[in-house]
Amino acid sequence: MHKKLFIPGPVDVRPEVLEAMGTPMIGHRTKDATELQKRVSEKVAKVFMTKNPILLSTTSGTGLMEGSIRSLTAKKAVVFSVGAFGDRWAKLAECNNVPVDLVRAEWGHPTTPEIVDEYLSTGKYDVFTITHNETSTGLMNPVKAIAEVRKKYPDVLWLMDAVSSMGGTPIPVDELGVDVCITSTQKAIGLPPGFSMCSASERALEYGKQVKYRGGYLDLLDLYKYILKKPYQYPSTPSLSHMYALDVQLDYILNEEGLENRFARHLKMAERTRAWAKEHFELFPVEEYASNTVTCIKNTRGISVKDLNAKLGEKGYQISNGYGDLKEKTFRIAHMADRQPEELETLLKLIDEIIPTL
Amino acid sequence: MHKKLFIPGPVDVRPEVLEAMGTPMIGHRTKDATELQKRVSEKVAKVFMTKNPILLSTTSGTGLMEGSIRSLTAKKAVVFSVGAFGDRWAKLAECNNVPVDLVRAEWGHPTTPEIVDEYLSTGKYDVFTITHNETSTGLMNPVKAIAEVRKKYPDVLWLMDAVSSMGGTPIPVDELGVDVCITSTQKAIGLPPGFSMCSASERALEYGKQVKYRGGYLDLLDLYKYILKKPYQYPSTPSLSHMYALDVQLDYILNEEGLENRFARHLKMAERTRAWAKEHFELFPVEEYASNTVTCIKNTRGISVKDLNAKLGEKGYQISNGYGDLKEKTFRIAHMADRQPEELETLLKLIDEIIPTL
Repeated sequence: MHKKLFIPGPVDVRPEVLEAMGTPMIGHRTKDATELQKRVSEKVAKVFMTKNPILLSTTSGTGLMEGSIRSLTAKKAVVFSVGAFGDRWAKLAECNNVPVDLVRAEWGHPTTPEIVDEYLSTGKYDVFTITHNETSTGLMNPVKAIAEVRKKYPDVLWLMDAVSSMGGTPIPVDELGVDVCITSTQKAIGLPPGFSMCSASERALEYGKQVKYRGGYLDLLDLYKYILKKPYQYPSTPSLSHMYALDVQLDYILNEEGLENRFARHLKMAERTRAWAKEHFELFPVEEYASNTVTCIKNTRGISVKDLNAKLGEKGYQISNGYGDLKEKTFRIAHMADRQPEELETLLKLIDEIIPTL
Repeated sequence: MHKKLFIPGPVDVRPEVLEAMGTPMIGHRTKDATELQKRVSEKVAKVFMTKNPILLSTTSGTGLMEGSIRSLTAKKAVVFSVGAFGDRWAKLAECNNVPVDLVRAEWGHPTTPEIVDEYLSTGKYDVFTITHNETSTGLMNPVKAIAEVRKKYPDVLWLMDAVSSMGGTPIPVDELGVDVCITSTQKAIGLPPGFSMCSASERALEYGKQVKYRGGYLDLLDLYKYILKKPYQYPSTPSLSHMYALDVQLDYILNEEGLENRFARHLKMAERTRAWAKEHFELFPVEEYASNTVTCIKNTRGISVKDLNAKLGEKGYQISNGYGDLKEKTFRIAHMADRQPEELETLLKLIDEIIPTL
């Protein structure tokens, strides 16, 4: 039995998008492939609200995170972490011998503009990273306020992980001044996993030139150089299937549902889930910073999340246990991509019925 | 109009495999996903003829090439190149500050056991790379003879690019003693691009421990550590669609067509194409080393390959121009994956008809 996924990726994918994954192959050096890649990139840019060129990558989002922090840090990076995926930035720097400082918020609390100000004011850093939406703690950072304070440090490059939120909530990349913004397909965009996208500012790509060893497959500068020189062509064979599917899904997002409606639907589901969570449990993150794509709930009643999920499974539904150390201490309900409010209602009703039986 | 692809990847994919690319999603941390990944890995191992564990990677083959040469070279690598994809190994080492010597054969000529002997006998290297099948020159290296001479240097790790031949010709990885063998999906295996696989020997994974900075997303050791500890689970979200498709296609390869029949079909098509090429043109590589998956033909008649391909396109067929500097000087007919001898006959007949009109 297929389970309806309320997990923070992979998400359920609309039938016509799944069908597009099975489109027959074309040569990746043909005009048709170039046009496909151009079309997809331009649509991705609309979701990102950016004029910066879009890079498509046959990796998960982690690949682009590594590529960007390694390719662009000449001095030292500061990683502001609000959870496991924030920490990942620091690990990706360290394993490449990229100097990095890791600044963790207490889990459930955001990266504040004040802490960003404090660290950037030292002048020690040329790069800082922010997790827009932290899947492990269900937290969305106050990026508008961070963007304000960052105006004092325009030369420090801003890399942002928007893997689990882009397409589900407004992230105006250019307005915020994000230099590299990264997302991947299997979250709010609503595709199968295996593909990621980023935008990069011209100055970021210029700045990275002084970094001598940037690697190959993930070298942001080399990839951009290639796609800007031979427009929309990639050095290695990319996943054409994901591009076909993106082509179809981005049309749906931009023209059928519309970005504003999509954001509103995500917000509605998030608010409903938070209200339900507060009624029965507690929110894990500070409410003001609760994510619009995934709700992380403190297991204040000490239920067995594992058993809850097993029973939900019998009914054809799946949620997520807590991530890493937060397993059983929290659980997560994702409400992203093309999940509908009615489906969420059914899920919450089911959980209500199951909890007394645990 | 869909064109029948006679290019060395992407290849045409069987309808049931395309359909499998559109399988609905499941959570990648579920038992179902673990079983899928286990099943696929075991089938891949059969094609590789290896007992070494298989790593699945959401990258093109280039990603695993970079991951392996960077993760395993502690001293210096020697890259034996017979074309553009051989050279790529050296570039992937250099951009990671991995010491490397590039030893090029004259294009069209193989890496000889003698040259391997000469270089390995210096004791300067801990890693050497061989391109099993070089797409740019249509050459297949004499790996049996290389394996013989390599027995004198058992401690030097052997990395092999079998991207464009695995699944189309026998490559008995363990018998040859290859430490890391790499392939990707969009060639003789017969899947869409966007995914790659490798095998790695225990001693290779042990040896790499002394390499301090191996990166993250492509770190062979870390990936293997993860999948061996949490069997068949991956640190990042992998491309489930490619796994579904591999599951179906590998059943077909192993159980329906059978490996031996598949190899025989590839050989038959290669022999037919070579005979045709010699009748009308010349083979680019020394005939003894001509590839069983792609034939590279010297354009001795000075035809316009571009025009030939345009006219073939009108009939619904596509071949490849020469690669890089060999453009127009050569052209390539790939006969791999699930292409059938009858289809090849039709193509050759079409080319025969078109050439006098050019």
